[in-house]
Amino acid sequence: MTMIPVNSPELPVLGPYSPATRAGGLLFVSAQTGVDPRTGTVQEGPFEIECRQAFVNLERVLRIAGSSLALVAKVTVFYTDLGQLAALNTVFTEVFPQDPPARSAAVVTLAGGRRISVDAVAALQ
Amino acid sequence: MTMIPVNSPELPVLGPYSPATRAGGLLFVSAQTGVDPRTGTVQEGPFEIECRQAFVNLERVLRIAGSSLALVAKVTVFYTDLGQLAALNTVFTEVFPQDPPARSAAVVTLAGGRRISVDAVAALQ
Amino acid sequence: MTMIPVNSPELPVLGPYSPATRAGGLLFVSAQTGVDPRTGTVQEGPFEIECRQAFVNLERVLRIAGSSLALVAKVTVFYTDLGQLAALNTVFTEVFPQDPPARSAAVVTLAGGRRISVDAVAALQ
Repeated sequence: MTMIPVNSPELPVLGPYSPATRAGGLLFVSAQTGVDPRTGTVQEGPFEIECRQAFVNLERVLRIAGSSLALVAKVTVFYTDLGQLAALNTVFTEVFPQDPPARSAAVVTLAGGRRISVDAVAALQ
Repeated sequence: MTMIPVNSPELPVLGPYSPATRAGGLLFVSAQTGVDPRTGTVQEGPFEIECRQAFVNLERVLRIAGSSLALVAKVTVFYTDLGQLAALNTVFTEVFPQDPPARSAAVVTLAGGRRISVDAVAALQ
Repeated sequence: MTMIPVNSPELPVLGPYSPATRAGGLLFVSAQTGVDPRTGTVQEGPFEIECRQAFVNLERVLRIAGSSLALVAKVTVFYTDLGQLAALNTVFTEVFPQDPPARSAAVVTLAGGRRISVDAVAALQ
């Protein structure tokens, strides 16, 4: 048994942690936010835009790490405005149109003015 | 390796996610709340009632998915009122009288006026 | 498949849950806080002190359970003051100087006046 961090020059450094790690046959993906990797800043404007960007970022980590959205088993969503739950669900359905993962969601406070973060546990291809 | 969603007509649809999924030999159960599946509404009255219902709902998902309370390895409890921690612990001890899972708990805001949600990672029978 | 709780007289009882459990080849560690096990009270003073103690407590559970900081795949950090993120990151870098785990973090409310809790999923040696 071991723990294997996933790193890639294609993945932005978000903090003093690995973008993802492998252990026990699973992939653990760090919380992804709506930061546009081209600009390094959060997507402004409607929540949906920021929310979609968070899942775009999640998909990138999954792909580089040898997984995919279809293999995500569990996501934990932290968001900051209860009023955005419907928008979250709309985006969620777009991202996972069938066989969606299990989910937990809670309204919290997030750093950097971010309105959403989503982490994931996924199977590996 | 794969991810297998768990679905059953016996399980209410809580949102655009699977009630549970299997991956890596583990079961990932979505956050369960104190919604009575017969009425579709949250258990009113004392927090303990709502809290017990959440664990009843968790047990149903576990059973249908091929696991059980005794096989739960980790639960994450989100609740909304720090003053209910003692009540949560009382219910928790009833639900897991021996060999309880590992646990994290945090006070957050939850959708729909719910006062508790609990998700789980469990071994499979 | 089974779930094996980890218990030891060396580990303080934090609540009605196991300090850690094993399932699916992974170790699940309960949320650790900055409680000094010698005094049973939270480390007072600067946040960094309390934060370091939480990771000291995490390391103890990992060691007794047959894992280590180097094998941690994912941590979820709950903290109570957004203003302490920089301090959290400083301590995190000390604790995980290389090959750090994946991480999620959110600002929540914690019981007992605690300012940080950290749980973990780790590989087993």
